[in-house]
Amino acid sequence: MAQSPRKLTMHIDETHDPVRSSWIESANLADCDFPIQNLPFGVFRRAGTDDAPSIGVAIGDRILDVRAAIEAGAITGLDGTTACALYANTLNDLMKLGRSAWVEARKAIARVLDASCPDLRDATDKHDVCLIYSGDVEMLNPAVIGDYTDFYASRNHATNVGKMFRPDGDPLLPNYRHLPVGYHGRASTVVPSGTPIRRPIGQTKADDADAPTFGPCRLLDYELEMGFFVGPATPLGDRIPIARAAEHLFGMCIVNDWSARDIQKWEYVPLGPFNAKNFATSISPWIVTLDALEPYRVAGPPRQSDDPMMLDYLKPTHDMSLDINVEVHIASKTMRDRGMPAHRVSRANFRDMFWTIAQMLVHHTSTGCAVNPGDLMASGTISGPTEDGRGCLLEMTWRGQNPVSLPDGSERKFLQDGDEVIISAFCEKEGYRRIGFGSCRGIVEPAT
Amino acid sequence: MAQSPRKLTMHIDETHDPVRSSWIESANLADCDFPIQNLPFGVFRRAGTDDAPSIGVAIGDRILDVRAAIEAGAITGLDGTTACALYANTLNDLMKLGRSAWVEARKAIARVLDASCPDLRDATDKHDVCLIYSGDVEMLNPAVIGDYTDFYASRNHATNVGKMFRPDGDPLLPNYRHLPVGYHGRASTVVPSGTPIRRPIGQTKADDADAPTFGPCRLLDYELEMGFFVGPATPLGDRIPIARAAEHLFGMCIVNDWSARDIQKWEYVPLGPFNAKNFATSISPWIVTLDALEPYRVAGPPRQSDDPMMLDYLKPTHDMSLDINVEVHIASKTMRDRGMPAHRVSRANFRDMFWTIAQMLVHHTSTGCAVNPGDLMASGTISGPTEDGRGCLLEMTWRGQNPVSLPDGSERKFLQDGDEVIISAFCEKEGYRRIGFGSCRGIVEPAT
Repeated sequence: MAQSPRKLTMHIDETHDPVRSSWIESANLADCDFPIQNLPFGVFRRAGTDDAPSIGVAIGDRILDVRAAIEAGAITGLDGTTACALYANTLNDLMKLGRSAWVEARKAIARVLDASCPDLRDATDKHDVCLIYSGDVEMLNPAVIGDYTDFYASRNHATNVGKMFRPDGDPLLPNYRHLPVGYHGRASTVVPSGTPIRRPIGQTKADDADAPTFGPCRLLDYELEMGFFVGPATPLGDRIPIARAAEHLFGMCIVNDWSARDIQKWEYVPLGPFNAKNFATSISPWIVTLDALEPYRVAGPPRQSDDPMMLDYLKPTHDMSLDINVEVHIASKTMRDRGMPAHRVSRANFRDMFWTIAQMLVHHTSTGCAVNPGDLMASGTISGPTEDGRGCLLEMTWRGQNPVSLPDGSERKFLQDGDEVIISAFCEKEGYRRIGFGSCRGIVEPAT
Repeated sequence: MAQSPRKLTMHIDETHDPVRSSWIESANLADCDFPIQNLPFGVFRRAGTDDAPSIGVAIGDRILDVRAAIEAGAITGLDGTTACALYANTLNDLMKLGRSAWVEARKAIARVLDASCPDLRDATDKHDVCLIYSGDVEMLNPAVIGDYTDFYASRNHATNVGKMFRPDGDPLLPNYRHLPVGYHGRASTVVPSGTPIRRPIGQTKADDADAPTFGPCRLLDYELEMGFFVGPATPLGDRIPIARAAEHLFGMCIVNDWSARDIQKWEYVPLGPFNAKNFATSISPWIVTLDALEPYRVAGPPRQSDDPMMLDYLKPTHDMSLDINVEVHIASKTMRDRGMPAHRVSRANFRDMFWTIAQMLVHHTSTGCAVNPGDLMASGTISGPTEDGRGCLLEMTWRGQNPVSLPDGSERKFLQDGDEVIISAFCEKEGYRRIGFGSCRGIVEPAT
């Protein structure tokens, strides 16, 4: 039975005003991911130094060093607690403070970067210390990630996987439309975009073999996902009601849940994916806040007429789907050597997910599971309804049956050494500025 | 095919000498868990205070406050790095330093507690600050646990579960004897012994129901496990070879992997247990080092004639099974109110596990998965070969068909509100002192 539609009330303020511009000119270009309306948070270190990491905000092709800008007196009027949190080496303290501090920080940073504000614009002697070109930094993980959870929230993806592996049954398992299926992942191997991805070694068994062998993964795949960082903690035993989920959602990033399909196939029954996923998970370095995404908050896809009634604890009180375009590009080493651009292999939209990030968080805490600032939760592979929207090679090539052609003349059933996978994400709509996530990149290195 | 037997070379030194005694008289009693030969590490705070947590070592019925004892000049001769690590509020720094520091700390602490050493024994004015009765403290988690992993390493347990859920097939899945099956768990809800366990709420579906419902778990269970803490880190991409696994094994504790069987049944296909396990995992507060357990390191159970050849990376280079007796007791609220002792419902031995903790760690890192000091890995339910050795109620009652009788006249298919589950573990053998783990306790509270 379909759910009754909910009213969408957007909380739009001056930080979303599309006319607003920055004195950092590169931020005002129409295709810029990081206009003054975005202001994503990240953690960086000046490249080639041992400097302590700083919290930064991306603006055009620059990064505002937030600690330096507070010290220089450019960012003013912050509450002491918020200022302290922005002095830290990670975003955990800011995440912990909750939405009022996030909005406060966002407005203070927007003010100093606004075209009309002379405080830092005209203090050119402070630019060297407060502003860095984005090419001159090493981006780090934005937070200490206490726990990492991965969901399976794309109905299109789950349906395709079901058709592949259970061709004679209902492609969706009985629980799928009743709860956001998820599993706990490995936090220690979440790495920032750009980290080389070593092809894992592991135990696999061919269908026609008597015994497994131990060696390099042969079916290495990416998974196009979006992730979100948790804000304020909940203690053991507390549940987050759906009406209050947004208070615990700090912001989002791109996630590539690298997957060793041959290891996964042999290991995953009965306790789920383990070594097939724990060798690396890449994330984009900039966390786009839910505040910046507010204009792109939309109703989710309509439920189908035979979809079951949702249990009350998961019923949305607000529209919490997000209109985010996501794309995967691949560039082989040959392509990069020849200067060829990366080749887009899929595109989809996050609004098509069957479960929202609010529902994922609510279900996760429904048992009383404690969450903490900096916990990362990812959506699972995002696949659109069409063939060009499948979010991993397993699905796109239908287990390798239909290889993808690359512009260098080669084909891919799964990833080869030297392949770079580039996932990008952005929001665009009439009447608002583009809000981008940048990209999440990783090059596959040979097994050792 | 059976593996060739390996030679057992025990590394026994003066810290294991069974004749050695302490001037803390309670440590010399034959049934004491914490003689001078044990010296397990934990983290405590004086009860009813807001004092900063300290690292402690259990000795008889007392706890040596290690920081206070260093400050008082009682523990001497430590390397500066080791002393600093022992000043911390958690054991992560000590775990990071590796075996040479662990042995150094162990010997220095054994020296000051030895019956023949007057340094602290005779400095009675220092006793108040350096020694606390174990009843006068709150025990905390011994380390910040970055990642928690749970395995499934008892062949008896996996066989019983297989017989229950797949009565017509081979009870062991094809991968079981080839690799230590495991899954990632939730680190944020690992809690020290004594923490009340709130009955979780969750989504469950009765076999004869059309749709799931959301409400209190009806099939709450414990799982008797042992866990180990990881020592020095490995970076992303590195594998730990089996010959070097022991260098990364700091010590062990008891684990109760509380499980909501009805939630588990509905959610766990295809990605494994999630909400069924993430509401709480209890651990005993004292970490018994591998050094203290050295006399109890033994050969594992013989492989059966039809067991497959082990892949090289998992083949033991040392005997790494551990002769640890494990027991589960239950005390209902009625029993406690009447002053009745807790009732033992099962006992088994950790030496019967099909996979060793060394093999678990090696398999976990075989893909290059990074591990960190303070990571916790648990064995999975420990079941012995006989009916009285089954390590959870699911198995013991055979899905509720054969309830367990308690001395208050009640029966248990699964846990009821008010039940206390007490897991204890200890090593005993001729020629060596008993090495105990204390206990891991939790009382089930009603759902809210």
